[in-house]
Amino acid sequence: MEPLYEGKAKRLWATENSNTLRMEFKNDATAFNGEKKASFENKGKLNNAISTLIYGFLENEGVPTHFVRQIDETNVEVKKVEILMVEVIIRNLAAGSFCKRTGMAEGTVFSAPIIEFSYKSDELGDPLINDDYIREMKLATPEDLAFLRESALKVNRILGDFFAKAGLKLVDFKLEFGRLAEDPSVIVLADEISPDGCRLWDLKTGEKMDKDRFRRDLGGVMEAYEEVLGRLKAQG
Amino acid sequence: MEPLYEGKAKRLWATENSNTLRMEFKNDATAFNGEKKASFENKGKLNNAISTLIYGFLENEGVPTHFVRQIDETNVEVKKVEILMVEVIIRNLAAGSFCKRTGMAEGTVFSAPIIEFSYKSDELGDPLINDDYIREMKLATPEDLAFLRESALKVNRILGDFFAKAGLKLVDFKLEFGRLAEDPSVIVLADEISPDGCRLWDLKTGEKMDKDRFRRDLGGVMEAYEEVLGRLKAQG
Ligand SMILES: Nc1ncnc2c1ncn2[C@@H]1O[C@H](COP(=O)(O)OP(=O)(O)O)[C@@H](O)[C@H]1O
Ligand SMILES: Nc1ncnc2c1ncn2[C@@H]1O[C@H](COP(=O)(O)OP(=O)(O)O)[C@@H](O)[C@H]1O
Ligand SMILES: [Mg+2]
Ligand SMILES: [Mg+2]
Repeated sequence: MEPLYEGKAKRLWATENSNTLRMEFKNDATAFNGEKKASFENKGKLNNAISTLIYGFLENEGVPTHFVRQIDETNVEVKKVEILMVEVIIRNLAAGSFCKRTGMAEGTVFSAPIIEFSYKSDELGDPLINDDYIREMKLATPEDLAFLRESALKVNRILGDFFAKAGLKLVDFKLEFGRLAEDPSVIVLADEISPDGCRLWDLKTGEKMDKDRFRRDLGGVMEAYEEVLGRLKAQG
Repeated sequence: MEPLYEGKAKRLWATENSNTLRMEFKNDATAFNGEKKASFENKGKLNNAISTLIYGFLENEGVPTHFVRQIDETNVEVKKVEILMVEVIIRNLAAGSFCKRTGMAEGTVFSAPIIEFSYKSDELGDPLINDDYIREMKLATPEDLAFLRESALKVNRILGDFFAKAGLKLVDFKLEFGRLAEDPSVIVLADEISPDGCRLWDLKTGEKMDKDRFRRDLGGVMEAYEEVLGRLKAQG
C-alpha cells in the first residue's frame, strides 16, 4: 500500500472511512526548509504522544480540531480536511525568523501576541505574507482570516496556561487549519502540535526544549521532547 | 559644508529655516539593497523634475506633503520631517519581490490594490512586516497605520489616473511618510516619487519605464526616465 501523501515528518493513509485519514508520525526531522535532515529514534512516538495529549486537551476546551483518536504509538485517526495553504504563526516572545527579520533581541516579550501568516509552500520557503496577499492569492477569505486569528489567539491562551503549568514558556508556534472534507464550511485545527512546531523554553532555566535543539546542534533533542511529554502528562 | 545625511540617491542639507531642508538629488543609482551601483548623467535632474511635478500635482489634489518648492535643477526645499521607519508599498499588478515571494506571474492584475509595509532598514534589507510587527517594534501606532493605508490608497488613485493619461501603467510604488518637525502630530508624504521607486509600464507596449531597466540591465535607463518626464509634462 502507498500513502496518500508523504511529507517531511508524517505520512497520510486512507482508512475505511472516506472522511478520515490515518496520520503516521515518522522519525524524520528536517529544518531550514528541508536543508538539514536527520532521523531520531522515538521521535514519531514522542510527537504523536505530545500532539495527542494536546489535541485531547484542546477538544476538551471546546476547540474544534481534526482529531478523532489515537490508533497506536505512531498513528492517529483524523478527520480528512483540505488544508488551508496559510500557516498561522503565533508569537509571545521574539525568537527565530522574527529576530532575523527585525533585528530584535531573542526573548523580547511582546505586549500582545503577534499573529502572522505564511504561504504554505516548501518551494518558496513558507514566506511571510499579509492579508492583502492572501486575498489576491485566493488562499482564504477575509472572514476565514478573522476566524483563524480568533482561533489562534484562543489556542494560544489555552496552551500558554497549559505549558506554564508544566514549567514551560510557549514562545511561539505554528498552526495549520483545514476545511472538513465532509463539510467544507467548517474550518478546524489540523496537523500536529509538538516541539517540532512550537518553541518551548524552560520557565526556570530558559533552556530550549524544542526543535531549536536540532536546528542549532544543541544535542539532547529527544531528551527534551521526552521531558516535555513527561511534564505535560504530569498535568493530566 | 557637510550634508546632514547622505543616502543612496540623495543628500539632505540644512537651510536657514530650522523647519525645512534642502534635498539634493544625486546621479547615483543603486539596486538590490545597494549591491548593484551605478551613476547616470542627468539622473538627479530627471528625478527632481519628475518628483517635483508629481508633488505639485498631489498638493493640488489635497494630499499633504513635505514639498515646499523647487530650488534648482537638482535641489528642492522640503519641510523637515521625522521619517517613519515604515515604508508603504502599493501594488496594482504583480511584479518584483511580490512575484519572487509568491510565485505569481508578473503582470497579474489584482482585484484591489495590495498594501504592504516594510521596515526601513538597509541593514536588514527592508523586510516585509505586518501590523503586529509594527506595533511591537513601536514603528507606528494602529492609528498611524490606518492613516498610511488611507493616504496610500488615495495617492494610488490620483497617480494611477495621472500616469494613465500619460500612457503609463502604475504597477507598484513605494511611499515614505514623516512627522513634521514643526508639529509631530501631523504626518505628511515625504521623500521622492520617481521611476526609482515606481514601476511604470508603457500602456501600449508593456515596456518597462523605470528602475527595472537598471536592475535587469535592459539599457536605455535615462531615456526611459526622460520619456516619463516628457509625457507627464505634456499632461500639464
Ligand atoms: N486532517 C488532515 N487532513 C488532510 N491533510 C492533513 C491533515 N492534517 C495535516 N495534514 C497535512 O498532512 C501533511 C502532514 O505531513 P508533514 O510531514 O507535516 O508534511 P509537510 O512536509 O508538507 O509539512 C501536511 O502537509 C499537513 O498539512
Ligand atoms: N522631508 C524630509 N525630512 C527628513 N528626511 C527626509 C525627508 N524626505 C526624505 N527624507 C529622508 O532622506 C533620505 C533621502 O536620501 P536617500 O538617498 O533616499 O536615502 P536612503 O539611502 O536612506 O534611501 C531618506 O532616508 C529619506 O527617508
Ligand atoms: Mg508539516
Ligand atoms: Mg531612499
